[in-house]
Amino acid sequence: MAGKVFFSVSMSLDGFIAPESPEELMGRQWMELQAWVFPLRFFRENLKLGGGGEQGRDNDIARETFERTGASVMGRRMFDAGEQAWPEEAPFHTPVFVVTHEKRDPWERTGGTTFHFVNDGIEAALDQARETAGDRDVRIAGGGATILEYVNAGLIDEFSVAVSPVLFGRGVRLFDGVDASRIALDQVRSEPSSRVTHLTYAVRPR
Amino acid sequence: MAGKVFFSVSMSLDGFIAPESPEELMGRQWMELQAWVFPLRFFRENLKLGGGGEQGRDNDIARETFERTGASVMGRRMFDAGEQAWPEEAPFHTPVFVVTHEKRDPWERTGGTTFHFVNDGIEAALDQARETAGDRDVRIAGGGATILEYVNAGLIDEFSVAVSPVLFGRGVRLFDGVDASRIALDQVRSEPSSRVTHLTYAVRPR
Repeated sequence: MAGKVFFSVSMSLDGFIAPESPEELMGRQWMELQAWVFPLRFFRENLKLGGGGEQGRDNDIARETFERTGASVMGRRMFDAGEQAWPEEAPFHTPVFVVTHEKRDPWERTGGTTFHFVNDGIEAALDQARETAGDRDVRIAGGGATILEYVNAGLIDEFSVAVSPVLFGRGVRLFDGVDASRIALDQVRSEPSSRVTHLTYAVRPR
Repeated sequence: MAGKVFFSVSMSLDGFIAPESPEELMGRQWMELQAWVFPLRFFRENLKLGGGGEQGRDNDIARETFERTGASVMGRRMFDAGEQAWPEEAPFHTPVFVVTHEKRDPWERTGGTTFHFVNDGIEAALDQARETAGDRDVRIAGGGATILEYVNAGLIDEFSVAVSPVLFGRGVRLFDGVDASRIALDQVRSEPSSRVTHLTYAVRPR
């Protein structure tokens, strides 16, 4: 059975998933948005930050999201930012298909992450990711513009949003430009933790 | 002990609480946004639509929101729209303070709703509502612009958002223009029902 295509992001209560400019990525708002992730045992393990860290439902959800993922897809901007920021052992541990115009050989990192550069659009990248993932799921990792392209193309089966108790006021909105007339949602799951609420929706065409 | 100042709205997952124009108020998106309310026993009782209706957590939440409210505050636009749309027995059953430039005598409806027209700003309207509400809470009923004025003035203690599984794409955003640099949120409660997720936050200054 083929896996699902999904995305999973942290979103501010007012709908933002990133600050306006990458320079703000270590800023206060971003840190608050992601505050639920940093203390997790899974986060510490995955980035080799040493032992310890919190267990519990947030940690389980982060781990499940990782484990269901057989391959990831990301846009050029997310890759460009990450290429500088990720540690030598990039945190994906699966093949990652980068939608880009740049022609480049696969870039293999230790720990199982290999970046493949796909030059012929989002559907081609997804096809390659699906092939690789087998019966595991394909995660559209980001950034926001890439996620939205997949949403508007009707290629997302399901997504999760961790709603953080923070207001951004400005930045990159998850659904800015969504084709709302063509997309219907079903609430699949809603799980509060002490820090955020994890909302999961299935997507279907109208 | 004085009551709290709160608001409670239904919000689309992409952050909208109303369509762009009042003419769309009976449109598809609005109906989907409010779809969790219409089947409730409390909704049917309150609007005298006859017996029946669903019980359960959504119904309890709607009833609790009503019962905690000792007085409401609303903006002129919400009042103008409602003046046409509300039934003879308006659904508030408490004093309602309307922030407006219009000078007008109190307008008493059957069933306990009396509209008072306050001409000297949001703080004056809130003071009068607080006085009337005693130890019950004051609800900032809407619309969006009025809620935001109270948020940015630091006058909201707590609020609830029923996140509906619908995308608007455009319309009136709850937090458009929020002064995010001055407002911090604490997640107080998060309660899923089968149709929506009820998120409750406390507001404090930064």
